[in-house]
Amino acid sequence: MTKRDAITFRSALLPQPLPLDSGRELAGVVMAYETYGELNEARDNAVLVFHALTGDQFVASEHPVTGKPGWWERMVGPGRPVDTDRYFVVCANVLGSCMGSTGPATQGPEGEPYAMRFPVITVRDMVRAQAALLDVLGIDTLHAVVGGSMGGMQALSFAANWPQRTRRVLAIATTARHSAQNIAFHEVGRQAIMADPAWNGGDYYEGQGEGGKGPEKGLAVARMAAHITYLSEAGLTEKFGRRLQDRDAKSFGFDADFQVESYLRHQGISFTDRFDANSYLYITRAMDYFDLAEEAGGRLADAFVAARDVRFCLVSFDTDWLYTTADMREVVHALNAVAAPVSFVELSAPYGHDSFLLDVPALDRVVRGFVG
Amino acid sequence: MTKRDAITFRSALLPQPLPLDSGRELAGVVMAYETYGELNEARDNAVLVFHALTGDQFVASEHPVTGKPGWWERMVGPGRPVDTDRYFVVCANVLGSCMGSTGPATQGPEGEPYAMRFPVITVRDMVRAQAALLDVLGIDTLHAVVGGSMGGMQALSFAANWPQRTRRVLAIATTARHSAQNIAFHEVGRQAIMADPAWNGGDYYEGQGEGGKGPEKGLAVARMAAHITYLSEAGLTEKFGRRLQDRDAKSFGFDADFQVESYLRHQGISFTDRFDANSYLYITRAMDYFDLAEEAGGRLADAFVAARDVRFCLVSFDTDWLYTTADMREVVHALNAVAAPVSFVELSAPYGHDSFLLDVPALDRVVRGFVG
Repeated sequence: MTKRDAITFRSALLPQPLPLDSGRELAGVVMAYETYGELNEARDNAVLVFHALTGDQFVASEHPVTGKPGWWERMVGPGRPVDTDRYFVVCANVLGSCMGSTGPATQGPEGEPYAMRFPVITVRDMVRAQAALLDVLGIDTLHAVVGGSMGGMQALSFAANWPQRTRRVLAIATTARHSAQNIAFHEVGRQAIMADPAWNGGDYYEGQGEGGKGPEKGLAVARMAAHITYLSEAGLTEKFGRRLQDRDAKSFGFDADFQVESYLRHQGISFTDRFDANSYLYITRAMDYFDLAEEAGGRLADAFVAARDVRFCLVSFDTDWLYTTADMREVVHALNAVAAPVSFVELSAPYGHDSFLLDVPALDRVVRGFVG
Repeated sequence: MTKRDAITFRSALLPQPLPLDSGRELAGVVMAYETYGELNEARDNAVLVFHALTGDQFVASEHPVTGKPGWWERMVGPGRPVDTDRYFVVCANVLGSCMGSTGPATQGPEGEPYAMRFPVITVRDMVRAQAALLDVLGIDTLHAVVGGSMGGMQALSFAANWPQRTRRVLAIATTARHSAQNIAFHEVGRQAIMADPAWNGGDYYEGQGEGGKGPEKGLAVARMAAHITYLSEAGLTEKFGRRLQDRDAKSFGFDADFQVESYLRHQGISFTDRFDANSYLYITRAMDYFDLAEEAGGRLADAFVAARDVRFCLVSFDTDWLYTTADMREVVHALNAVAAPVSFVELSAPYGHDSFLLDVPALDRVVRGFVG
């Protein structure tokens, strides 16, 4: 948390209170965002990129906390598949997150951090906040919305709810509905955080809670569990197998004997430097609540009735067991049912769900071809 | 822990110190066990059943802590597939566990519980302890060894190391080697336990550690994560889908809105009543270390060279993504390579890995046919 607190983010204050699916509304919402390229005079060359659960607005520029390159630099930039020489790319930190946008760590109206007093939000609420940000930026209609994983959920939600505001929708490695297994993995992560005495009911921002540093151990465990779902079994085997970490023989102890243990521990611990545990609770909850068919009264096709003039492209990966090709196919069927123009491709890549972030040249070609 | 402490288990003291794969040895090992049926005069009608990670010796009789029926009553009993009218069934609590056999909760030579001073053990060590128990019981050669999941690992280990002591080996829903993904899930569980301040480095048996009750929260999270791997995605969807728990609409809160959340929380919490967290650490470690090929110098077939006169039956389930049909097929190939007689069947069942414990009539028929 400390590292994030010291950073000034580029951001906009939404002029109106944001209505939420819960029936509550949120005043004074700040949306942190980054842009790449130039908005043209017609203001019609903008591409909105949605980030995933633990992502952020730094899609094509250095992350200010970790110093790492933008999370999708291979896809977004000059001459890249989403070409910033031609398009004005906007990426906003989602509502509820912790990289400058309003979330549980933000100071609420009582003058103290919201913590668990922050309202429970939905994926549609996240998208609503970004539609309001587009108003602030003076962008009426987008060239395209693009996202993978939770970003893909937002892309589909944008199509369902604001179809007149985009011409193209590209949704990658995602689903129209969180499954029981998806919910189960998230619930494990939430319970790991809440079981940590340092969580203290969410009130840890001002040094309360055991240790005063927030539920770092619980958050690390949550991240470890989630991380397994981002990788394929075959990918894990290829990357680590049963190879030992810095030793020739098993230690007959509880150190990280295996490389895969060491890797997971590192993933868990490093995550706590850049992410807020309460944000993790709220965003996973929003994903679990996501069910586009339910929002439309039970039938997925009805969610897309007003989106039949939008062009869709859907991409799945054959080794993704978190959001599978079968999940994506349900979306395709719904779009077919309303006669929306849709291309669908299942790509072969060894990395599981994380394939959308990694070196998959076929994905680059699909994105370049569709965004145009 | 309290509930278990008050119970007297049927058990035997091993007369010799038990040598361990780590090079250490363990003196004064107690093995708790149950038997069903009668040993015949020739002492050749015994069937040794191996239990799974969190299982116990109460295969066909009431669990003394939970009051629930034996975990495999559908399979073991008079007239059942493993027919106790014909066979003398022995099931021992594995070394390192917590239902009466020597494990981390046992008092060590210093007079205090071993806790994390207990030696790290292997699946072969567990089996070695049971072979020693057979000596105590005066059983030289078994009619069969039978086990599912970690019980199947023990069955394979028994075949590899004590092939002259059984005529048949039945291994169900198991593997000859823990994969990177298997290790990863276990590591999440161990980290959840160790992250709990109530774990206290393993010393919680005498009321030390925060709260004085041991790492119940961490153990519950570990169980929740593991439990997901025991079920199939389709099974979870069929059983729970996105159905809500005791409510008509989402609560927009962090209670267990979804049935699958409520179910998982219950699985986690109820587990802590009957299982010891340190035992969970030691047994998962033993499973992660399991690699029969490595024990044989790198080639799995070499593990079974001395077992070529034993009859094998291997069973996998099509929805088991923890130990898959592909994992089992590797064992079959190794057995084929040494010309051991082996039947292999993949059964169709919707329950994922847990199918071996549940209502799968085809499994009953396979077991009955093979055990004879």
